[in-house]
Amino acid sequence: MDGFDITTCLAKDAPAAAPRFGGFPPYNFIGGHNDPALIPLDGLIAAAGAVLARDGRRLATYNLSQGPQGYRPLREFVAAKLSGRRGIAAAADDVLITSGSGQGIDIVNRLLVSPGDTVLIEEFSYAGAITRARQSGAGVIALPLDEQGIRTDALENILTAQRAKGVTPKYIYTIPTIQNPTGSILPLDRRQALVALSARFGVPIFEDECYADLLWHDVDAPPALRALAPSQVVHIGSFSKSLAPALRLGYASADWPMLARMIACKADGGTGAIDQMVAAEYFSSHFAAHIDRLSTGLSAKLAVMQEAVAREFGTAIETWAPRGGIFLWMKLPAEVDVRTLVQPALAAGVAFNPGPEWAVDAETAKSHLRLCFALPTADEIREGVAAFARVCREQTGIPRQSANIRHQ
Amino acid sequence: MDGFDITTCLAKDAPAAAPRFGGFPPYNFIGGHNDPALIPLDGLIAAAGAVLARDGRRLATYNLSQGPQGYRPLREFVAAKLSGRRGIAAAADDVLITSGSGQGIDIVNRLLVSPGDTVLIEEFSYAGAITRARQSGAGVIALPLDEQGIRTDALENILTAQRAKGVTPKYIYTIPTIQNPTGSILPLDRRQALVALSARFGVPIFEDECYADLLWHDVDAPPALRALAPSQVVHIGSFSKSLAPALRLGYASADWPMLARMIACKADGGTGAIDQMVAAEYFSSHFAAHIDRLSTGLSAKLAVMQEAVAREFGTAIETWAPRGGIFLWMKLPAEVDVRTLVQPALAAGVAFNPGPEWAVDAETAKSHLRLCFALPTADEIREGVAAFARVCREQTGIPRQSANIRHQ
Repeated sequence: MDGFDITTCLAKDAPAAAPRFGGFPPYNFIGGHNDPALIPLDGLIAAAGAVLARDGRRLATYNLSQGPQGYRPLREFVAAKLSGRRGIAAAADDVLITSGSGQGIDIVNRLLVSPGDTVLIEEFSYAGAITRARQSGAGVIALPLDEQGIRTDALENILTAQRAKGVTPKYIYTIPTIQNPTGSILPLDRRQALVALSARFGVPIFEDECYADLLWHDVDAPPALRALAPSQVVHIGSFSKSLAPALRLGYASADWPMLARMIACKADGGTGAIDQMVAAEYFSSHFAAHIDRLSTGLSAKLAVMQEAVAREFGTAIETWAPRGGIFLWMKLPAEVDVRTLVQPALAAGVAFNPGPEWAVDAETAKSHLRLCFALPTADEIREGVAAFARVCREQTGIPRQSANIRHQ
Repeated sequence: MDGFDITTCLAKDAPAAAPRFGGFPPYNFIGGHNDPALIPLDGLIAAAGAVLARDGRRLATYNLSQGPQGYRPLREFVAAKLSGRRGIAAAADDVLITSGSGQGIDIVNRLLVSPGDTVLIEEFSYAGAITRARQSGAGVIALPLDEQGIRTDALENILTAQRAKGVTPKYIYTIPTIQNPTGSILPLDRRQALVALSARFGVPIFEDECYADLLWHDVDAPPALRALAPSQVVHIGSFSKSLAPALRLGYASADWPMLARMIACKADGGTGAIDQMVAAEYFSSHFAAHIDRLSTGLSAKLAVMQEAVAREFGTAIETWAPRGGIFLWMKLPAEVDVRTLVQPALAAGVAFNPGPEWAVDAETAKSHLRLCFALPTADEIREGVAAFARVCREQTGIPRQSANIRHQ
């Protein structure tokens, strides 16, 4: 009896094989990782002990006997955070805990998008949101951004043009508070204009606030879009940035008719229970202090990265000024196509996000790139940016000189 | 500016809204819940403290910096368990941790099944496996069972008939060790016949061993099918039954070409990290003792349920004799359609699984039902079975009399 390889039986559209995981590169500026030094270890250990002792027998039941929306104390925490910090009227029953915010994106696409539909996404945005919309069969139209976020004048023109073609886009996906990748915060007047356009054209807003907890200390954010126009907005958020991405905890908030549909789409048998319990226990009493410490640490790392980029690239690079978060968005001269730098940079131990992967229309961001600064140490940031500048110079002649070279 | 309800924008095939969760019924005999009294609370608390202190800073990174296959110590534990207990040669790199075994089922369907394909499933089987195969567009053919599991003579006839029609089924889905719902264990000679048929007809085996850790003390199981014919078998398992379902931990084992495709399909950004860490830490030193305690407790509850069923239903009911697990499969007289009992039973506080939901062809199981016994206490089992017998008698006249009635 001879065996056979099951992959000879694959469906025609099966995805390609994943490569073996080879570990992180030495200078890892990609992925939404957080700062290992800022994980509140003692607090999490104490929280795990307390919450398991009190509520641990619930682990014997699916969803901790509390239904598919998630662990009730975690939903209560999210509701209080949304109410207290983002202006969203919410109780525990208005919240769905998701297995990461990516699950929220999948569910919204599942509910709203059919092949051939149109969705609107900020011209530079989270790669996962663009990819998932396209996997759902949507055509994606880019919304122009400036340093404050969506240009609502341009949005109005796009919606008017779509209406003239008989098209009602299925949603406007926006990251209004610490936009990914530009780090901007949409001002209140534009938020008001945005929800007014949503109402006028009958296009729901899909608001992603993954980074909204990570504001620098001198920064305030206006209320969430969902606070301004609850029925028109599906709001998602995450604990990946405020606590830790390995936990796979996100949340969604929407009016009940929509939320009830979202719950019906959550087909994973629940979100990991100990993760939910520990996050609920720890954040129920330590959220403000933790966020404060995190913002202090991350803004210091941003300063290190900004200094390193200025030192290594000088005037050859244009950088945005993020108002929170974990990434820096920048642009090299138009003659540089950053896609040509990906492999040489990896060979030098540096991973970065090429702009085209973070853009609705790849060509518009061919000279842009995103560097994440939370994971590497300050020294790794300095060394990695220098290594990247060397690669860039070798490949493109830019930057033409640098402090490093002068000192060598 | 007027708002609007986003559900007016839903895609045509959006699923119906979920109901508000109303809590468990008093006599909850459905769902793969475990026994709250058998959750090893002290052990889990100690494990959480130890593993977070040692490895907790990894939480700052997606997948704990260890790649999409999952937390390495958990993969090492699974590999050792598969090797030591199930005869499957496996190392940590041969294992994929999944977010529950349901994710494993989704991934296998995604990889192998296209609309219009055919799959083979045991005539009575896990509802989630039947449903998910059909959602993938497969036609499902029922494989006859007897008290030992799949009848391989019938399987050969079905494969021959399909071949004559030019059809190669995409997989044979089987739960060979503690079959769900019948509780049987497939003997070695049938396992050998099954993998021989798989090879001869070129049909992969999809082996689900969710319950294989929960054997009664006097029971031994032959090696897993994947041990007998590694390249032909995708093997999945779960921690839901051996530890706790709220954790959402499962695993898959397959030869690398298939496993690499499965990894590519795992699009959730990883499985909950603290759940993985705690399970790895606890089971790395306590698995055998915990499983022993669990089997003792569960077999005692089964005995309570068997006694209650015999007392309340007498000769009106035929029961299978499970060799492990958490459920009892039984059959009322053919004139009873258990679907008519679901609502009256719920009104009396009793939830049970009607046979038609656990069968490929609903009508063949219209008088069957499944009762899970892990969650309820012994008293709840006795009271709930008595309440169910009363409902059954009121609705159908069966059972005709009972010890309860004689005592009233």
